[in-house]
Amino acid sequence: MIIDLISDTVTKPSKEMLAAMMHAKVGDDVFKMDPTTNALQEKIAKLFGMEDALFFPSGTMANQTAIKLHTQPGDKLICDKYAHVYNYEGGGAAFNSGVTCKLMDGNRGMFTAAQLQDAIAEGFGIHTPFASLVCIENTTNKGGGACWDFSELEKLQKISKENNLAFHLDGARLFNALVAKNESPKQYGELFDTISICLSKGLGAPIGSVLLGSKAHIAKALRIRKLLGGAMRQVGFLAAAGIYALDNHIDRLAEDHKKAKEIGAVLESVSYVTKVEPIETNIVIFYVDAKIGSDKFIHKMEAKNILLTPMGEGKIRIVTHLDYTDEMHDILLKELKDF
Amino acid sequence: MIIDLISDTVTKPSKEMLAAMMHAKVGDDVFKMDPTTNALQEKIAKLFGMEDALFFPSGTMANQTAIKLHTQPGDKLICDKYAHVYNYEGGGAAFNSGVTCKLMDGNRGMFTAAQLQDAIAEGFGIHTPFASLVCIENTTNKGGGACWDFSELEKLQKISKENNLAFHLDGARLFNALVAKNESPKQYGELFDTISICLSKGLGAPIGSVLLGSKAHIAKALRIRKLLGGAMRQVGFLAAAGIYALDNHIDRLAEDHKKAKEIGAVLESVSYVTKVEPIETNIVIFYVDAKIGSDKFIHKMEAKNILLTPMGEGKIRIVTHLDYTDEMHDILLKELKDF
Amino acid sequence: MIIDLISDTVTKPSKEMLAAMMHAKVGDDVFKMDPTTNALQEKIAKLFGMEDALFFPSGTMANQTAIKLHTQPGDKLICDKYAHVYNYEGGGAAFNSGVTCKLMDGNRGMFTAAQLQDAIAEGFGIHTPFASLVCIENTTNKGGGACWDFSELEKLQKISKENNLAFHLDGARLFNALVAKNESPKQYGELFDTISICLSKGLGAPIGSVLLGSKAHIAKALRIRKLLGGAMRQVGFLAAAGIYALDNHIDRLAEDHKKAKEIGAVLESVSYVTKVEPIETNIVIFYVDAKIGSDKFIHKMEAKNILLTPMGEGKIRIVTHLDYTDEMHDILLKELKDF
Amino acid sequence: MIIDLISDTVTKPSKEMLAAMMHAKVGDDVFKMDPTTNALQEKIAKLFGMEDALFFPSGTMANQTAIKLHTQPGDKLICDKYAHVYNYEGGGAAFNSGVTCKLMDGNRGMFTAAQLQDAIAEGFGIHTPFASLVCIENTTNKGGGACWDFSELEKLQKISKENNLAFHLDGARLFNALVAKNESPKQYGELFDTISICLSKGLGAPIGSVLLGSKAHIAKALRIRKLLGGAMRQVGFLAAAGIYALDNHIDRLAEDHKKAKEIGAVLESVSYVTKVEPIETNIVIFYVDAKIGSDKFIHKMEAKNILLTPMGEGKIRIVTHLDYTDEMHDILLKELKDF
Repeated sequence: MIIDLISDTVTKPSKEMLAAMMHAKVGDDVFKMDPTTNALQEKIAKLFGMEDALFFPSGTMANQTAIKLHTQPGDKLICDKYAHVYNYEGGGAAFNSGVTCKLMDGNRGMFTAAQLQDAIAEGFGIHTPFASLVCIENTTNKGGGACWDFSELEKLQKISKENNLAFHLDGARLFNALVAKNESPKQYGELFDTISICLSKGLGAPIGSVLLGSKAHIAKALRIRKLLGGAMRQVGFLAAAGIYALDNHIDRLAEDHKKAKEIGAVLESVSYVTKVEPIETNIVIFYVDAKIGSDKFIHKMEAKNILLTPMGEGKIRIVTHLDYTDEMHDILLKELKDF
Repeated sequence: MIIDLISDTVTKPSKEMLAAMMHAKVGDDVFKMDPTTNALQEKIAKLFGMEDALFFPSGTMANQTAIKLHTQPGDKLICDKYAHVYNYEGGGAAFNSGVTCKLMDGNRGMFTAAQLQDAIAEGFGIHTPFASLVCIENTTNKGGGACWDFSELEKLQKISKENNLAFHLDGARLFNALVAKNESPKQYGELFDTISICLSKGLGAPIGSVLLGSKAHIAKALRIRKLLGGAMRQVGFLAAAGIYALDNHIDRLAEDHKKAKEIGAVLESVSYVTKVEPIETNIVIFYVDAKIGSDKFIHKMEAKNILLTPMGEGKIRIVTHLDYTDEMHDILLKELKDF
Repeated sequence: MIIDLISDTVTKPSKEMLAAMMHAKVGDDVFKMDPTTNALQEKIAKLFGMEDALFFPSGTMANQTAIKLHTQPGDKLICDKYAHVYNYEGGGAAFNSGVTCKLMDGNRGMFTAAQLQDAIAEGFGIHTPFASLVCIENTTNKGGGACWDFSELEKLQKISKENNLAFHLDGARLFNALVAKNESPKQYGELFDTISICLSKGLGAPIGSVLLGSKAHIAKALRIRKLLGGAMRQVGFLAAAGIYALDNHIDRLAEDHKKAKEIGAVLESVSYVTKVEPIETNIVIFYVDAKIGSDKFIHKMEAKNILLTPMGEGKIRIVTHLDYTDEMHDILLKELKDF
Repeated sequence: MIIDLISDTVTKPSKEMLAAMMHAKVGDDVFKMDPTTNALQEKIAKLFGMEDALFFPSGTMANQTAIKLHTQPGDKLICDKYAHVYNYEGGGAAFNSGVTCKLMDGNRGMFTAAQLQDAIAEGFGIHTPFASLVCIENTTNKGGGACWDFSELEKLQKISKENNLAFHLDGARLFNALVAKNESPKQYGELFDTISICLSKGLGAPIGSVLLGSKAHIAKALRIRKLLGGAMRQVGFLAAAGIYALDNHIDRLAEDHKKAKEIGAVLESVSYVTKVEPIETNIVIFYVDAKIGSDKFIHKMEAKNILLTPMGEGKIRIVTHLDYTDEMHDILLKELKDF
């Protein structure tokens, strides 16, 4: 048995999800004639109280499309120095949109309204890129699954609006935040111009993300998705998994969070761990003693069929998910204690 | 019963293909850990005698990645004025790669070695974009499923090589050409630097294309696919359909070709058709009398649940495929005769 | 004495123009504090009845900026197959703006309102690039200095406006058209969204072009010019030459046209010339007999210190200009007759 | 009398430089036939011991071309967080080259070999942009004219080479560093793949920068310059000023540095200044007391015809230059003391 804690992207569909996929009604989604994809898009748009939605083969493409929607080449987007759009999308903001990232020096991936205000104020006429977009990531991946304070998001949105900046949410793990903070999708739908939601992380679908926005934005997104090569054919098989996930896999995220916190408690108690980042959702980030070193630790755990991720700068990441069972949890806790 | 002849992309998986999909072993393909995707890639690379292959969510992304691989921004690619990469990929060559298309004035989407030679010769120093790539499409979509003469392709490849031009094949419907001309994949694998193959057209898989090339090209393609947002998670469900298609759906393309020719024979015989393009594979392009007009013709057929595509300039396109049954064929032939 | 007829770009400032340059008041134009550049921009904007103008180091940058102003990456611009923006700007539309060129099959670089209407009508949803710009070139360079019929331009503008297409004029040699057709700058200022004017062709200034447009367009153009690296410092030396040219070198273009027609008359009379294109302004395009061949002809003339341009496809181009004196004219006519 | 200390770009040619400009032999530099431009390029290439050089209308275009030369879209370049290429070129790295900037947390614009080593080590496969270029700026503009330690540059070059990273120097004010540190151009020519040199800052020419590199790089740069619209016609007028500057304006930079240090000494002595950055060349950066505030200070000085630059974050910048006379210096020192 492999205990794969590298990411919540590694989950495989359950028998029930697979059955939903197998029985999906499909059509050619390039011509918008796939009924299941259309149903998923309507369902999630309604859930967030937003006008429209569009399915994408990846969260990266959903985010990149949002960046493209809201910017002109040469503009800058403002995001945290930990943001996925800056760190883990291959340099796509520059590649796809010709956009420079202005990096905020936030805390665990989250910056404040005051910091945004300062970033907007700086500039030197035509020498400085024009700011057109603010990107928020909730929960923060590199920040260890941290959840933004909603009242701070409201302030950030207000400043963005006053300065004609679009406001995009990379919600790859938004449902983790909603469950952890007891917030509703509609709160976010009201606040953001566009939101990307990943179906293949905590929600457990095999492939896909959704971009939410106004009808006008989604109409443009359709054209951008085609240009990027993301227009696919019988998408309903994937969309069916997404619908199943929305119906069945949201509330159970609390279970992933509970396990993450239990892992954290063990890590706090062992001598070889020097620090554990605050745990709010399903991501655990900790630092091991320099005498062991993160590489050695990871290799030793791998020898026990436990897979973890090195995060650079001596950090290690654990991500709990749908396929991480109670049995695995018991084994992991024991191994961490006994190490 | 809808008789959908709009494209061979509209097919839905058979029961057997669906079973193959649902029993696929899957993993996270972003980390290259999806065994079925890996198996598909190896299988098709071996079939063409090429070093490596990579799965893409669409043929557009596979072609766009090939263009990116072979060009620098500001370069030009040389293709026929009918080429899919110029006409039907949303302007992607310019958008994704900053590349200008030099259009050859070919015949049904096919140009000659002599024309290529002339195109290379023209130019005016730094004023003219630098040529770095020749794109061939076989069969030609807008050219009505026409198949290139292989000896002409050999000449084109020779000229390309002599002039340091990469040689890419948009093989969205290459298997139709192979079956129609009794050619082998390896002939093409030897000739081209990269080949894109669509699994969701005549082959009948729901989603996906594959790009074939050298190990070095595919390593770069992996990074480009990530940038475009085409790195997906549990891709094995889709790859399994591709494997099934390669095993079961190639030879039967002859059946689609036979039906296309039978449709053509009827169209040749009716008075309201002014011209039928030569039919070599599964695409039929014809022109109706101006008194009827293509729009009216298409609407009247639609009223009989028969769906056709207007091609502009008065043309109509019919595409036969896996889901176009003998029963449908009889109905269509009757309707065309009786119109 | 070299008789350089390669282009009207080869002229050198006269003593008077040089004096104007030498006495120019200058400042740092990056901060918009160069008084002479500001004066040139005001002067030419007023001349065309347009709101604002901006100096550029080249006509290519002025055109490329206009394209950027009016398009989004992935869009298409519609221009003649002979257009400078497609043929002689290095592939810049794709490189700088990610824009595809839709080429019209015009006559000597000029297409009709009916052709534009057709081009707009064609398209296939998201598969086809979105049209956002029509580019006109007057006079046409590759078309041999041909002048558009103004009433056709009015029709083209009307269609463009109805279809929300911006309407840009590459007026590198617009003053040649104005003089030849007895038209006024204001006629053009009213018709086009943006106009580029070259100061270093027929007008005889050493460096520079100007882009004309609305205040909003020029404000954006300022930022794009900075991005392309076209913001320069003490530009007044160059602007002074431009002001001198506008004051002194417009009417005399008639002289260049007269000489061009006289050259044409000689070419019509000699046996080794197979065809002379109609001559309307200062460009002469002709074809020599295959027995001689254009390369041999050009080399033989070069041996006599007469420089001409090969245009590909067997064509030769002669361009008359400010530095082409009566004495040179007599020599050229004699050499052409005696060849 | 205006005492303009906003930048060393505001200088106007002396009578002697103007005479050199007006007697320049010129030709069409688009066809590489401008003798004075060719002479300047040869002269400066020889001075640095590099193979070739190319004139540009601006330092921004010279740097942007270098970035383009050394990168592929999607790559990242590594530079200091203060770098001109990141802060003051309008977002050009992303716009022109699709390149992401990885920002080093340096000291006054200068980072260490150890920091570069760390930056190269971090990364997460295809998720992270591929590093292909290191950009150094010497002296640093935003860093207050600081000069890099040459032995650190040698270490940085070694690491770059070992990791196949190109090594570019933004030498807008390199001659200030050479004079301040008593270094030679050839030391830098040996170390860097490409170097941009600005002629219109301390050197006092009105317009232009030069890019230095290998013959192969400059051949490519020629094409890129055309694409960006930087190919100009009778450039010799500007190149002549550059030649004059290289012959006459290098050694005198020591005078600008002396004055800058004298200004610094006064600023250190007055109570309203909270901090003065170390002064190594011709740039003085200081902070005024919050009670006054930088805006108020700048406006009060402006009322006395003394122009300074606000740098954000409460900083003020003074730049000494060729047109800043002894008389102006006396006035400034007095006004600073008396404020």
